Amino acid sequence: MPGAEGFPEAELRGVYRAIRDRRDVRSGFLPEPLSDQVLSRLLEAAHHAPSVGLMQPWRFILIRAMETRKAVHDIFLRSNQAALDTYEGDRAKKYASLTIEGILEAPQNLCIICNPECERGHRLGRLSMPETALYSAVCAAQNLWLAARAEGIGVGWVSILDKKALHEVLHIPENIVPVAYLCLGYVDHFAAKPDLERAGWERRIPLDQVLAFERYDQRWTAEEKKP
Amino acid sequence: MPGAEGFPEAELRGVYRAIRDRRDVRSGFLPEPLSDQVLSRLLEAAHHAPSVGLMQPWRFILIRAMETRKAVHDIFLRSNQAALDTYEGDRAKKYASLTIEGILEAPQNLCIICNPECERGHRLGRLSMPETALYSAVCAAQNLWLAARAEGIGVGWVSILDKKALHEVLHIPENIVPVAYLCLGYVDHFAAKPDLERAGWERRIPLDQVLAFERYDQRWTAEEKKP
Repeated sequence: MPGAEGFPEAELRGVYRAIRDRRDVRSGFLPEPLSDQVLSRLLEAAHHAPSVGLMQPWRFILIRAMETRKAVHDIFLRSNQAALDTYEGDRAKKYASLTIEGILEAPQNLCIICNPECERGHRLGRLSMPETALYSAVCAAQNLWLAARAEGIGVGWVSILDKKALHEVLHIPENIVPVAYLCLGYVDHFAAKPDLERAGWERRIPLDQVLAFERYDQRWTAEEKKP
Repeated sequence: MPGAEGFPEAELRGVYRAIRDRRDVRSGFLPEPLSDQVLSRLLEAAHHAPSVGLMQPWRFILIRAMETRKAVHDIFLRSNQAALDTYEGDRAKKYASLTIEGILEAPQNLCIICNPECERGHRLGRLSMPETALYSAVCAAQNLWLAARAEGIGVGWVSILDKKALHEVLHIPENIVPVAYLCLGYVDHFAAKPDLERAGWERRIPLDQVLAFERYDQRWTAEEKKP
């Protein structure tokens, strides 16, 4: 290969393994707390995310107190009931049977928030696509998620939360956006397949069904492929 | 450590190294094309991203033709001029001096798009936070970016593009959202620091300035830290 070298084999394998074996963990968290050392490594990983204009628009709220987690869990219960009410019949039954959050079980919760208008970065890259500020905070979440998998720590992203209520409980100013509410903790094991696949909620689709070539409506056929 | 084990040392090191040494590459791309094997590995990495409700709402448009890249580059030139017009004085001079895209130089371009309303996932997790569909596609971009770094491939995310014009050039339907336009290619070397830091556009902030404890307006002080 030309130019800069890739990682040695074991390091390369680690990257692909974290990506492939990462799971959205919603149950089976162990009560042992994360040490501040390991938590700091995960937060440094998040903080090394790319950000538009180098604005680093994120902030990490570390949540451990059971009182706070209970208040967030109450928000979840209300939002989840509202979601359940939109389903009918078998789909409603299946939805009700899913475990989709570990707010009280996971000893460490973490809310990643974003100030999409902050001065840092001097607006670079945000005139055409202002949403990239929020996207930067998402990249931080994904960095943390992969690092956690490599450390043997499970992470679950809870999106069934009313944001306005979350603002109140965590005292988040109005102009700041909650991007990701994460539950973290050690786990007995990582499942081989995504929970929602095992529960029969949805199947994964093969990669070739989401590939297009040169334009949206053109498939990537064998003739165009390079050896 | 309790429960599931973390990765062996070299694999763990690889994950943190990819996160730490990843760069937003905007220049210095080598002309050698990516083989379909390596490109497929990167796309599989992207396709293994988390997605709300397992909806996998992304689609990847692979772009190689110089004709397409020139059309996208024309969009960039117009959007970049509009951005430049918003700066004045020294900041305008500095902005004009930056290299912020490698659309024509990088042999492989890739547009990650998202159908935020697609049926897959049966709406799970999207009633309270519908934006998580777009966030899933961002996680796909970050997965690919980290895998590329481990393979020795540079990636740059270009956000200075008018989305409406991008829709036209790539024949993207109106209801589909362009999330990330990426430039990929081998590079001579990866910079030790972000380009925007080296150019004096913005500095990175230390992690402790973006940490809060239990609620937005509370710092994480030493007393609360666990050994």
